[in-house]
Amino acid sequence: MKRLVLLGLTIGMAMLCAAQQELSSRAAGAPRLNIDGSVTFTIDAPEAQWVKLHLDYQRDTLMNRDANGRWTFTTSALKPDVYRYNYIVDGVKVLDVNNVHMMRDVATVMNLLIVPGEQSDLYTVHDVPHGTVSAVWYNSPTLGTDRRMTIYTPPGYENSRQRYPVLYLLHGTGGDETAWLEQGRTAQIVDNLIASGQAQPMIVVMPNGHVDDQAAVGFTSKGLDTPTFSHSQWMEGSMERSFSDITSYVEKNYRVSNLKRHHAIAGLSMGGFHALYISANNPSEYGYVGLFSAAISSRSDSECDLYKDIEQKLKQQFRQRVSLYWIGIGKDDFLREDNQRFTDMLDRNRLRYTFYESEGGHEWRNWRLYLTQFVPLLFK
Amino acid sequence: MKRLVLLGLTIGMAMLCAAQQELSSRAAGAPRLNIDGSVTFTIDAPEAQWVKLHLDYQRDTLMNRDANGRWTFTTSALKPDVYRYNYIVDGVKVLDVNNVHMMRDVATVMNLLIVPGEQSDLYTVHDVPHGTVSAVWYNSPTLGTDRRMTIYTPPGYENSRQRYPVLYLLHGTGGDETAWLEQGRTAQIVDNLIASGQAQPMIVVMPNGHVDDQAAVGFTSKGLDTPTFSHSQWMEGSMERSFSDITSYVEKNYRVSNLKRHHAIAGLSMGGFHALYISANNPSEYGYVGLFSAAISSRSDSECDLYKDIEQKLKQQFRQRVSLYWIGIGKDDFLREDNQRFTDMLDRNRLRYTFYESEGGHEWRNWRLYLTQFVPLLFK
Repeated sequence: MKRLVLLGLTIGMAMLCAAQQELSSRAAGAPRLNIDGSVTFTIDAPEAQWVKLHLDYQRDTLMNRDANGRWTFTTSALKPDVYRYNYIVDGVKVLDVNNVHMMRDVATVMNLLIVPGEQSDLYTVHDVPHGTVSAVWYNSPTLGTDRRMTIYTPPGYENSRQRYPVLYLLHGTGGDETAWLEQGRTAQIVDNLIASGQAQPMIVVMPNGHVDDQAAVGFTSKGLDTPTFSHSQWMEGSMERSFSDITSYVEKNYRVSNLKRHHAIAGLSMGGFHALYISANNPSEYGYVGLFSAAISSRSDSECDLYKDIEQKLKQQFRQRVSLYWIGIGKDDFLREDNQRFTDMLDRNRLRYTFYESEGGHEWRNWRLYLTQFVPLLFK
Repeated sequence: MKRLVLLGLTIGMAMLCAAQQELSSRAAGAPRLNIDGSVTFTIDAPEAQWVKLHLDYQRDTLMNRDANGRWTFTTSALKPDVYRYNYIVDGVKVLDVNNVHMMRDVATVMNLLIVPGEQSDLYTVHDVPHGTVSAVWYNSPTLGTDRRMTIYTPPGYENSRQRYPVLYLLHGTGGDETAWLEQGRTAQIVDNLIASGQAQPMIVVMPNGHVDDQAAVGFTSKGLDTPTFSHSQWMEGSMERSFSDITSYVEKNYRVSNLKRHHAIAGLSMGGFHALYISANNPSEYGYVGLFSAAISSRSDSECDLYKDIEQKLKQQFRQRVSLYWIGIGKDDFLREDNQRFTDMLDRNRLRYTFYESEGGHEWRNWRLYLTQFVPLLFK
């Protein structure tokens, strides 16, 4: 309990300090948090005809010019969270030169800021022990190639001989092996939850879910391409079939527990689909399953055996005992109805799950939120 | 020899393919390499009054507008290398929306492209086995804090029990533990040199050389600051004194050889200064030393014992045998004269070193080049 109180204090102090500081930079011109929770954006563009602010979850807004050609705009109070933004100057997208922090989502790069507060405190780096983050290459005999994945090992891993529980964390169609780390702030979330005693020390494995990619853009011999959404193979069984190449590598090279109750698998959107079918087809493997805004339904053109008889497979999976089957979905998510049909089916079969409904839609602020809800429930 | 020929073929094919493709993106509008080695840059900005191209090693140039508001500029033939660029639209710095690849240098972010050819082929990702890159946190009792560093382990490290040689690779005043990885393309260079048989498999340790920073910007509790050049402590002995905290961590957690002839230390600019004084003060530790555009002279206000009697220390170091003392400097480097005085002193004392003089100045194209020259000479 003491730890939780301390965390509360830390949050309070963080908010206080941040209220008097710039949000994302010491440089003049970076976004500035105001005492009422609003944020003031500033860009110098004396020769521009017009400047707009493009900010996550807001409509694009014209900014106001002063006599020196400095353009500013102050938002209403923003909910504590991670936000992405950029400017539009005379029709051209412009990143903030006063903020070196950026995030890529498929082919779009935007600046990053964190509005401090209770939820976003988990996304923020604190003076707590930090885990190791590695980009490793594993061989996939099933896919006939080497592939890259990201692995988080918790603080203390290097100094111990113990075996750790493992969470396999899968991204969506727009992501790669860097998505959960960068957009998901996974290392910060898990560091902070472990430090406050809310989560068990665990290994988190973040593979690349696109079987026709070896790695994120820039890390393959394709060169410095700009990524696209187009993939020749997806949700046709290859990722699920090759998944044991990933678990084999992890089990061989990391000290992971071999107990089912120490194995979790979760994913967002397409990754939720992967998590559903990988766990259902391997009912003795995963004690914990997380479906975050999951693309529940298999492709109608799919002939893949892995996707057949899912109701029977789930009954078998639950019969072999699942410690937690966790489903998170936003009220406005376009996959809301698919998830409803899925939980109706689980209800019909009296298969027990935890349902977490959030505001909003199919977006990273929900997937970060779901991760902070899911991780404390694991491996208890 | 066969391997070298194959590498030559690969280079030729890479150049051929690249000549028919876009350089850094499949998206329309990304820089395009022409058959004569020139590059055409394109940006859509119909409402702009003027657009300039800012490109590494070139003067800023006005671009040409067509009737649709598309601005283009074609360079002369560019030497194969890594280049950074951005646009300036009506006075505002603009990154290329058609290229998601960027590089940070202190507080400046620019787009990245690679002009293919013999030298830059080593900076390019090929279909060769890739090493693991980890961001690890180590405790520094000397500095009283946890600190972050980047560690490259070679392909095969995970599947072997052997001990590996280790290169400690240090950055300059503007860098951090990500500099050699991102601007230096170290993982690509070492991957490629190992794959072609030109370098021994080795571990490369890239620490953070600023003792008042725990880690690169964004990875500490300071939040999402924009970095500055200002450091309260630098080149006053703390980095050198705390360096054994780094080697202790590496020796404890990685399978590194404990032989002096398997230990190398090298650095650029301030990192060259660190490499010089760390190796001279620990004459039994490093068989290989690399000074890349090194800031040879200690600060005139420094009282630090580590920097005193350097001539005597070097004589002692060479008496205890140095397999390679490698000095690289550009003809136009502002540290050229300091390096000349240093090699004159080595000459006077008949201390044998390898001197590599390049074109150009104090810049990353030289530090990448020096790394490709230095690494093949190690641990032979």
